[in-house]
Amino acid sequence: MCELLGMSANVPTDICFSFAGLMQRGGATGPHRDGWGIGFYEGHALRAFHDPNPSFDSPIAQLICNYPIKSHTVISHIRQANVGGVNLENTHPFSRELWGFTWTFAHNGQLDKSLFDWPLEFYKPVGTTDSEYAFCWLMGQIRKEFPERPVDMSVLMHFIESRAAKLRSLGVFNMLLSESEYLFCYCTTKLHWLTRKAPFGEAQLKDTELVVDFCSETQADDVVSVIATEPLTDNEQWQTLQTGELLVFRHGELSQRMLSSEAS
Amino acid sequence: MCELLGMSANVPTDICFSFAGLMQRGGATGPHRDGWGIGFYEGHALRAFHDPNPSFDSPIAQLICNYPIKSHTVISHIRQANVGGVNLENTHPFSRELWGFTWTFAHNGQLDKSLFDWPLEFYKPVGTTDSEYAFCWLMGQIRKEFPERPVDMSVLMHFIESRAAKLRSLGVFNMLLSESEYLFCYCTTKLHWLTRKAPFGEAQLKDTELVVDFCSETQADDVVSVIATEPLTDNEQWQTLQTGELLVFRHGELSQRMLSSEAS
Repeated sequence: MCELLGMSANVPTDICFSFAGLMQRGGATGPHRDGWGIGFYEGHALRAFHDPNPSFDSPIAQLICNYPIKSHTVISHIRQANVGGVNLENTHPFSRELWGFTWTFAHNGQLDKSLFDWPLEFYKPVGTTDSEYAFCWLMGQIRKEFPERPVDMSVLMHFIESRAAKLRSLGVFNMLLSESEYLFCYCTTKLHWLTRKAPFGEAQLKDTELVVDFCSETQADDVVSVIATEPLTDNEQWQTLQTGELLVFRHGELSQRMLSSEAS
Repeated sequence: MCELLGMSANVPTDICFSFAGLMQRGGATGPHRDGWGIGFYEGHALRAFHDPNPSFDSPIAQLICNYPIKSHTVISHIRQANVGGVNLENTHPFSRELWGFTWTFAHNGQLDKSLFDWPLEFYKPVGTTDSEYAFCWLMGQIRKEFPERPVDMSVLMHFIESRAAKLRSLGVFNMLLSESEYLFCYCTTKLHWLTRKAPFGEAQLKDTELVVDFCSETQADDVVSVIATEPLTDNEQWQTLQTGELLVFRHGELSQRMLSSEAS
């Protein structure tokens, strides 16, 4: 299994603190030695870093910890490979363009190999993972249903939930997905989240001896939500997503949640 | 005007030396302060870095100089903005997926604004540059003509040359383009290239006091071609592309060259 990390914020925010915790799981406190990647949205543009090497001793990961890239929306992933070799092609997050937006996707779980029989129309995988195949299928479905970006985004949210439920029928499908403004988080087995806003307190990372006092790091109006496979801190209240639940974050706040109990 | 740098090699090769020269032009020895980007192919996967800040003092550019990422094909660009604001959306190289290949593109020059009336079918720009618009148009044309990757790549090369000539009818179109294996280089006004192979000698960068002895850095069978807006070294023989010329490199060697004297 892999580890996912997502962030949604109302002002450009650096993810150094959470990422410092996550990267320890890439070979140090966790078994996820098979590469890692992170995508930061700055405006509508995506800045992505990928490394097929373990994160805990990666010079690129070190750069990201030390060089505060500020972003509204972040998707990150560290990998413990199941389907597909350990190489750059197979390193999440994956991205494709639709409507002039760069969509980004990371997946935790494993899907039945019958997935590879599902027809792809517009987008083709570069690598060999079930994850990228699922992403290409999902993006093709969205493109076919919504040739243009819909005005009412809640219609899109329901559609994504229905397609994620279809993917869940093939196995474990925990997913983070974004087009820059909205962060879609779908849970089959394991995802946790919290929203930080005033009054800010102190947070203590579980995976490394790092404490941050958000009070001194933030402005009073800042709102930041963090979504992760496992809680990253041990002195904050993380909430657990249910099986079949889709949460959508926007500008740091939970914007919509929907749940279908059955995989379709 | 911007600066382009491309590399094609028969074995994974680092571009540290040439990149060290190029990045000096991003605000130190050249006026190109409006961001830079680089894409490395490793297998079919692209590892890309983008920074809207000047390259000569960028921590990410410094990382690339010091951390030898080995690649068969590289496309890099430093920007002096004309069309489109200075931000990450507008930072080259741009990329899109076709046939399960990630295509990458960088452009130097400026095209008439009537370009923005040319219809786009499949790919849409994320930013506002003429360059990304031209790339989306070109990729749409390739996709329409070749729904699948052609077996005979020379047919594709002729098609790309014809479409590049069409873009050249709108102004200055110097371009680097790749799908991972082939590096397409099209010239309107300014592109230079050389191929390094045994017997290797010493090279002296023009923009910074750096000398490399390729003899000690390479194996006897290595072949590496470098393509740049301006020659990067002052003690090697660089060749000049002609207006309307397309060179295609593969595995480090010049694979095809074609020339149409008229913009179409």
